[in-house]
Amino acid sequence: MAESIAFIDDEFVPVSEAKISIMEPTFTKSDVVYDTLSSRKGYIFRLDDHMRRFEASYRAMQLAPPYATDDIRRITAECIMRSGYGDTCVTLMATRGPFIDLADRDIRKCRNGLMAVCVPYYWVLGKDKQTSGVNMVITENQRVPAGAIDARVKNFNWMDLTRGLLEAYEKGGDSALLCTPDGFLSEGPGFNIWLAKDGRLFTPRGNLLEGVTRRSVFDLAQELGVETSEKPLSPEDLRGADEAFTSTTAGGITPITQVDGKTLGNGAPGILTTRLTDEYWRRRDAGWCGTRPEEVLQDRDVA
Amino acid sequence: MAESIAFIDDEFVPVSEAKISIMEPTFTKSDVVYDTLSSRKGYIFRLDDHMRRFEASYRAMQLAPPYATDDIRRITAECIMRSGYGDTCVTLMATRGPFIDLADRDIRKCRNGLMAVCVPYYWVLGKDKQTSGVNMVITENQRVPAGAIDARVKNFNWMDLTRGLLEAYEKGGDSALLCTPDGFLSEGPGFNIWLAKDGRLFTPRGNLLEGVTRRSVFDLAQELGVETSEKPLSPEDLRGADEAFTSTTAGGITPITQVDGKTLGNGAPGILTTRLTDEYWRRRDAGWCGTRPEEVLQDRDVA
Repeated sequence: MAESIAFIDDEFVPVSEAKISIMEPTFTKSDVVYDTLSSRKGYIFRLDDHMRRFEASYRAMQLAPPYATDDIRRITAECIMRSGYGDTCVTLMATRGPFIDLADRDIRKCRNGLMAVCVPYYWVLGKDKQTSGVNMVITENQRVPAGAIDARVKNFNWMDLTRGLLEAYEKGGDSALLCTPDGFLSEGPGFNIWLAKDGRLFTPRGNLLEGVTRRSVFDLAQELGVETSEKPLSPEDLRGADEAFTSTTAGGITPITQVDGKTLGNGAPGILTTRLTDEYWRRRDAGWCGTRPEEVLQDRDVA
Repeated sequence: MAESIAFIDDEFVPVSEAKISIMEPTFTKSDVVYDTLSSRKGYIFRLDDHMRRFEASYRAMQLAPPYATDDIRRITAECIMRSGYGDTCVTLMATRGPFIDLADRDIRKCRNGLMAVCVPYYWVLGKDKQTSGVNMVITENQRVPAGAIDARVKNFNWMDLTRGLLEAYEKGGDSALLCTPDGFLSEGPGFNIWLAKDGRLFTPRGNLLEGVTRRSVFDLAQELGVETSEKPLSPEDLRGADEAFTSTTAGGITPITQVDGKTLGNGAPGILTTRLTDEYWRRRDAGWCGTRPEEVLQDRDVA
């Protein structure tokens, strides 16, 4: 039977057994970076892109996981194989790890760790929103600026995003889109944002995660002959867009059909959004940019 | 024998057994608020102040711990009593808790929890710094602004503080002092900051934790007839100060004797700093603003 699998303390275990001490700075300082990748029909999507980003994240925080990239690739593949799921999300985490001694709380002396967890593929905005679209609330709560926390270093410091989400729920929204302190659109809890105007695609740039699905949208748009532009975008740009959507590993492309409760465009998922979504999943089903976990594991087992 | 004690999943356990699932948003979104209090010679310091701040923190994040404030007081006291330590730090945590179902990651449906942990009293800047003083680095990495994350809501989203700390270590410092995005002094990883100039005391105001020890310094200064002022302070204000110190639950008052590697004042802990430190510990030893855990427990046991 298929089950969710974690890799923790150098072992593969059922996810229900994957726990960390509440004393670790991994938890008490959220001193951990991560990356989430997905597999579809047995193909891991853009494995090397995720590995590069994960490595950039842990290096930025001076974390040294006890496994080399090749090992982390194999751990990822083995989590998927052991789980028995064909469609998965795998989260990799590089942790600060436990203090050597609670009386000497020097993070430089912590034993850095690596964790992974493989669960069935999930839709961060809900699968039903693929057809209905989401009501996206542009929140007053701002996204952290890069001078404080670098959103490109994928991390669990989500308090701004969670505050945004709670604000969005209060306003009747499905999810939240946060702005930079100077008022430009940034990103939401777990996704990048796109808008379409006059047949062209726009996405914000700045202190936001450089999403792998975001990159895939650039690639798809180019192949479909749609012009793209990465630039500062205002809330008004979104409100005046013809269509809009989110991009994320856990849910692909999701249409935005309302902004702050007001209908966007004609209120249905946009033509370009639908075309990109169909193309994204058609290609994913065919193993686009895919790596089979079996191939990753064929050289040798995880040490 | 004395040992560190945790309260988790409605039970008191040795701290080594206190673990949370790596799937909880408590961890994966750092969706948790906390408070740390201390006991000295068997007296809990300013228990009600900490309880009020803890409650304000969890309410701000719409968290509803499964215990009322009176219960949380008793859990705190019982952790201390069970530990057998006279001098402790106790951390209370209000958690978002686990998702009901991993396929429905709606934080509104999580089962909120309460955790506590009691460890021997520790010095966040190292006890040796009480005499030598710290070399404090004013970092380029900024503190998050209140529009993104409210530092008054005590939380584990420490990535800006940790980045600051890593920067300070690289520059040869003992710890880090972060500035607001507009360049004013804010706070460091686990402490507030004070400076003395011409016999008066100054501390920043803005997006920073309203520390209980910080409040105690205001109280002590008033009783000692020293004028205090809470106002925006620049790095230059600190560099030109006669003396400076940090205030925190885990370490009380600690002198700053260097800023960015340059000697502050005469390079020794300042006269006012020493006077405040002596007075702080003299009063703590005498049970100042203290509550005995036995008193807290005398009404009835924790449910």
